[in-house]
Amino acid sequence: MMLSAADAAREIAEGRLTSEELVQACLERIRALEPKVQAWTFLDQEHALTQARAADEHKRSGKPIGPLHGVPVGVKDIFDTADMPTENGTVLHQGRTPRADAAAVRSLRASGAVILGKTVTTECAYFAPGKTRNPHNPEHTPGGSSSGSAAAVAAGMVPLALGSQTAGSTIRPASFCGVYGFKPTHGLIPRSGVLQLSRTLDHVGLFARTIEDIALLAEQLAGWDEKDPDTRPRARIPFQALAAEEPPIPPMLALIKTPHWERTDGDTREAFGELVEALGDRVEEVELFPSALEAWDWQKTIMAAEMAANLEREWRAGKDRLSPQLRELIERGREVRAVDYQRAVRAIAPAVESLDELFMERYDAILTPTALGTAPRGLASTGDPVFCTPWTLLGMPALSVPLMQGANRLPLGAQLVGRRGFDARLMRTARWLVAKLA
Amino acid sequence: MMLSAADAAREIAEGRLTSEELVQACLERIRALEPKVQAWTFLDQEHALTQARAADEHKRSGKPIGPLHGVPVGVKDIFDTADMPTENGTVLHQGRTPRADAAAVRSLRASGAVILGKTVTTECAYFAPGKTRNPHNPEHTPGGSSSGSAAAVAAGMVPLALGSQTAGSTIRPASFCGVYGFKPTHGLIPRSGVLQLSRTLDHVGLFARTIEDIALLAEQLAGWDEKDPDTRPRARIPFQALAAEEPPIPPMLALIKTPHWERTDGDTREAFGELVEALGDRVEEVELFPSALEAWDWQKTIMAAEMAANLEREWRAGKDRLSPQLRELIERGREVRAVDYQRAVRAIAPAVESLDELFMERYDAILTPTALGTAPRGLASTGDPVFCTPWTLLGMPALSVPLMQGANRLPLGAQLVGRRGFDARLMRTARWLVAKLA
Repeated sequence: MMLSAADAAREIAEGRLTSEELVQACLERIRALEPKVQAWTFLDQEHALTQARAADEHKRSGKPIGPLHGVPVGVKDIFDTADMPTENGTVLHQGRTPRADAAAVRSLRASGAVILGKTVTTECAYFAPGKTRNPHNPEHTPGGSSSGSAAAVAAGMVPLALGSQTAGSTIRPASFCGVYGFKPTHGLIPRSGVLQLSRTLDHVGLFARTIEDIALLAEQLAGWDEKDPDTRPRARIPFQALAAEEPPIPPMLALIKTPHWERTDGDTREAFGELVEALGDRVEEVELFPSALEAWDWQKTIMAAEMAANLEREWRAGKDRLSPQLRELIERGREVRAVDYQRAVRAIAPAVESLDELFMERYDAILTPTALGTAPRGLASTGDPVFCTPWTLLGMPALSVPLMQGANRLPLGAQLVGRRGFDARLMRTARWLVAKLA
Repeated sequence: MMLSAADAAREIAEGRLTSEELVQACLERIRALEPKVQAWTFLDQEHALTQARAADEHKRSGKPIGPLHGVPVGVKDIFDTADMPTENGTVLHQGRTPRADAAAVRSLRASGAVILGKTVTTECAYFAPGKTRNPHNPEHTPGGSSSGSAAAVAAGMVPLALGSQTAGSTIRPASFCGVYGFKPTHGLIPRSGVLQLSRTLDHVGLFARTIEDIALLAEQLAGWDEKDPDTRPRARIPFQALAAEEPPIPPMLALIKTPHWERTDGDTREAFGELVEALGDRVEEVELFPSALEAWDWQKTIMAAEMAANLEREWRAGKDRLSPQLRELIERGREVRAVDYQRAVRAIAPAVESLDELFMERYDAILTPTALGTAPRGLASTGDPVFCTPWTLLGMPALSVPLMQGANRLPLGAQLVGRRGFDARLMRTARWLVAKLA
């Protein structure tokens, strides 16, 4: 079932496909592959089909339909759903049944989507892995924390899925699983009803198999929500139309290797070498300004301090039932001093301003790795988010583009990072990049 | 020179008074009383007169004039002024000459005001006193930290002055000096260009001798400033017109004694007893809900942590030249943990919501003491802000109304606290209260 969401929505709207047929096909694919991939933590096939039939009934009645009418979407199990449990990947929340949908889930339903089921998250969207395996090779991690969403989209179980990113939880699994992963500008998509780890760093993340689908999904989700104080009232952004435009002149990319480049594996460096060669004069290597080198530390300080505050109740109620990784993080976060925390938070705005100059002067997007390499072997770790954390910290839009492959035949994404607030432009640049390399 | 700002502006606008005459009269008053009161830290008489003559010249030329045209205003020496030094009450900033005006000073100039001079602040607007004395009795403190602004307005040296409040730095000195002191809703008046102690707690404060003048001044200062992230774009609020309206029905006040009532002196309790008696059925005693009792601790935690971050440079550069009080605060603040700090900040919004119910159900304003009593004898301390800190924390508008007197003949204000965002309503209620007791 590799039909894109945009095509599926079109087929359904034009009466050539029913939502029930589409959902049935997704469920068949899941029945075939789930034993190997383990992407879902909750999936009630009858409930999914009931939603699909209701969508078909609605359409038959002649009522207006939304842009995702009848299209199934997977939702990471840290988004509250009123009709399915939401367990946040921790035994401490086992059997938790929220009364209301998260804002993003509400938007999906308003667009006509079928909420197919809940996808596997690592424990509290941090590092301790869930059961999911990489669909390209089950001996390898799918990445995390949005493990199930990335794997489900990659395996063709569903065309779209929601994830999140506080460090590298969307970009990294998208790269490892070979799909598009999009982390929008901070505050673009409301996070209310999503397990809060860090107001400063949390982002909703999107997974799809085409850029068009990323744009379609972003268009449904962006907006103001009174319960997310980092969102702002604004006009609806026509992401699909903007992403589909031709750039007025060929974009210019800034290759930023970062100080962590030396830790990337040989495959990554070779793949990037080929990529840069293919791009010719459309890419230039740029050095990060010196103070940006502290971004990694700032992100760690903020993540530890805010997660310690947000998960204090869980830590108090059952620290012995948390993974050692999460317990260690919270305990480290409890020791962070308020002055250091404030210094890190205050460093964000000036760093964003400095990076803005890059975009104003010359570049359309930053080109940088998504991860140290392809998905590491083994399931004990979801990989290192080191190539994602600075852009998460700075709230800049980032897209993992499935362009490359390692010698092990596992996928490897290239990360494009855009100017804060220019998400549609980033999608347009990504579309240009893919076409240029085709 | 007890002319109100509104009357002075009217006289000037109608040509019966010149700004030069008014400023000359203020300067005479200052020459007579400053040796005793010591309200000013910078005052260049020639520069003040030059501004006044320019205002008169501007008016003679027939150009449109602003609502404060030609009216002198005193500015606490933590507001940056491009034409006068700004030393923030610390030797560490001696000789500091900012290049730009603070946003509030810019607004004053845009309204036509004459910036008469800079008034004495305690050290960095914290507790270590400046040289100012109480104009009603120089053996007593004027309160702080806006000591010079309160004293200058009380002594008739200037009809209006700017101060600030992070704990009780406007309400307390206004009460001790017998003038109106107004601390607006958090975010109503931009603070950019003012020494930042605490983004969460800092407010611009206003001093005047009539409510009409408080409204006139607030109307000039309220607004959005892109450099103060807590301000919001909004329509201009007609404070003067709203404050002058008759309440549709007689207001109802909620007397909140707080757990600190027992520490007030006999004078305060007696004066409040008479006040409550005079108000009859228009006042009812109300208990604070239990969780609000933590407000004092939350305010202390936030003030220490944020001041430690904001004054880190001063502490590093010259901690031996800070007062013991300030050094102790910063060192305490440096030890505050980020989890405790975040818990305190997050407590604000739900507490504001709970207090909102009070206003929606029955009451127009809270009535509560401004301080433990009249201005304490001696100049070593500016008094205790304990009756101000919770309302500062919650960002609610507060007004010190000079209604009472102690047995020692020193003034004693009553504090009215309004619903967050309803500043003009609070002024209207205060006007009603004053008229009722007249």
